[in-house]
Amino acid sequence: MGEFELIRHYFAAAACARAGGDVVLGIGDDCALLAVPAGEQLVISTDTLVAGVHFPDPCDPCLLGQRALAVSTSDLAAMGATPIGFTLALSLPLAEPGWLEAFARGLDIMAAACDMRLIGGDTTRGPLSMTLTVFGRVPAGQALLRSGARVGDLLCVGGTVGDAAGALPLVLGEREGASAEASALLDRYWSPQPQLALGQALRGKATAALDISDGLLADCGHIAAASSVRLAIEQARVPLSDALVRWAGRERALQCGLAGGDDYVLAFALPREELPGLLADGWPIRVIGRIEAGEGVRLLDADGKDVPIDRQGYNHFNA
Amino acid sequence: MGEFELIRHYFAAAACARAGGDVVLGIGDDCALLAVPAGEQLVISTDTLVAGVHFPDPCDPCLLGQRALAVSTSDLAAMGATPIGFTLALSLPLAEPGWLEAFARGLDIMAAACDMRLIGGDTTRGPLSMTLTVFGRVPAGQALLRSGARVGDLLCVGGTVGDAAGALPLVLGEREGASAEASALLDRYWSPQPQLALGQALRGKATAALDISDGLLADCGHIAAASSVRLAIEQARVPLSDALVRWAGRERALQCGLAGGDDYVLAFALPREELPGLLADGWPIRVIGRIEAGEGVRLLDADGKDVPIDRQGYNHFNA
Repeated sequence: MGEFELIRHYFAAAACARAGGDVVLGIGDDCALLAVPAGEQLVISTDTLVAGVHFPDPCDPCLLGQRALAVSTSDLAAMGATPIGFTLALSLPLAEPGWLEAFARGLDIMAAACDMRLIGGDTTRGPLSMTLTVFGRVPAGQALLRSGARVGDLLCVGGTVGDAAGALPLVLGEREGASAEASALLDRYWSPQPQLALGQALRGKATAALDISDGLLADCGHIAAASSVRLAIEQARVPLSDALVRWAGRERALQCGLAGGDDYVLAFALPREELPGLLADGWPIRVIGRIEAGEGVRLLDADGKDVPIDRQGYNHFNA
Repeated sequence: MGEFELIRHYFAAAACARAGGDVVLGIGDDCALLAVPAGEQLVISTDTLVAGVHFPDPCDPCLLGQRALAVSTSDLAAMGATPIGFTLALSLPLAEPGWLEAFARGLDIMAAACDMRLIGGDTTRGPLSMTLTVFGRVPAGQALLRSGARVGDLLCVGGTVGDAAGALPLVLGEREGASAEASALLDRYWSPQPQLALGQALRGKATAALDISDGLLADCGHIAAASSVRLAIEQARVPLSDALVRWAGRERALQCGLAGGDDYVLAFALPREELPGLLADGWPIRVIGRIEAGEGVRLLDADGKDVPIDRQGYNHFNA
């Protein structure tokens, strides 16, 4: 089977017309065509996952497909965007039908969950890696940026953090576990759920937002830098799942929550007056601190005293 | 230097505001934002280049930067699009400042030539490879597709073919040469010039178009399949550069022109009545055949007899 048939055959489900009228032309020509509705802007993000760096090799290709699309789509959530579609650039050492079929199935599961469509791609022979570029749309001027946090805003997250980092010893095969906790953590790692609906609900309300991919401390540092403010995090309010605390113990769980990446829940700055309405609507928002004048990130203990920060988020070229 | 500073530092030139008002938000947030003018559609293409597969490793990183962007931008030319910008997902075994500086310089040279801007990216540790996703815009309904060729149309190309394939022995170090011919061929390989202006001039005129990346025969096969027609190529009219003929001899030059890829000139179907006007405007169009009823591609000798086709375009998983 040739390169062209390969893509068409295995990725047919993910490429089917799902996202409605925005995709004018999908896979099969030199380019894809998108129509962006009047008054909306196009939102774009690109992420690469490399075997042995971002995921273990070998691993379950279906789970890998889910995770690859979720990681990129989470950036759309962080902007408050409505997803449209994605392109997939896939490098493979060889075209193994079973692997491709399972990977495409995983991709399609996440595409269906996010209401997205595969609109184009490239398949090349090479070391296993994949670059997904995702597309969404947002009303002009309403995208959630990192740069708008204001002193006095609340610092919030969209759910528990640390589960994906807690799962890493399982993912890497350094530890074994078949418990309900292990299974819950693995699920967070392999199949994160981009908080698209929450992101859209935060449009016009949150003053700054991102998705936690590098770790809570590191990502809060990004908001602080972009907004020229300081983010104060109350350690005791960092939400940790019961599964993580049972699995790793409270101290290690907190470490995972602060420094571990790959959670893909939203972190955002919210004016106080916006909180009651969002909570009343049932959004799983947790207040973990506040925005102050200054720079960087501080961590506070239960007495309001500064906790030394000695853990940095993962950095690919400094790690 | 961290991952974020790395991108910002070395790619600052390519990320500067060059493309005008379409880029609302560039590098530095979770996503980039594009405004697509009313009445226009967004055009998207993605391509991966892997070290050792699509280019030799080591190679000159400045030339590699030029080529990487040209290869992708050529797909925009094939759609008749006006370029806006691109994202770069770069995997590197290590962050070597000299390499990055030169690669970024090459990228910027081509970005300036194509009036494009780097709008986002991802840098990861991994085997050397890069995925570029390029964005352009085209008036709604005017994109040049592969699927509209009609029986009776002329088959045309936008310039000479085969130079890049002729350069391959030089690129791979299998042959040495410092002649003017060798230098001209190497230049075609490393720094192809996307035919953006020609593509835009063909809007509303050409009935089908693509850029020659897999080789003339293979790519004409793509038009034939998408348009449900047959493409007849007159062998004697396939334009070959003097440099290629002098370097490789006429027979090998013709092989390169028919089966070699990487030329990135446009091939298109054109109604006869459109030709005089385009030639009068000075476009470097060469008629090489015609569109017939049927399927596939045929090659004709000087007597109009069929020449057996035994060479296929390069196919990554069939090669």
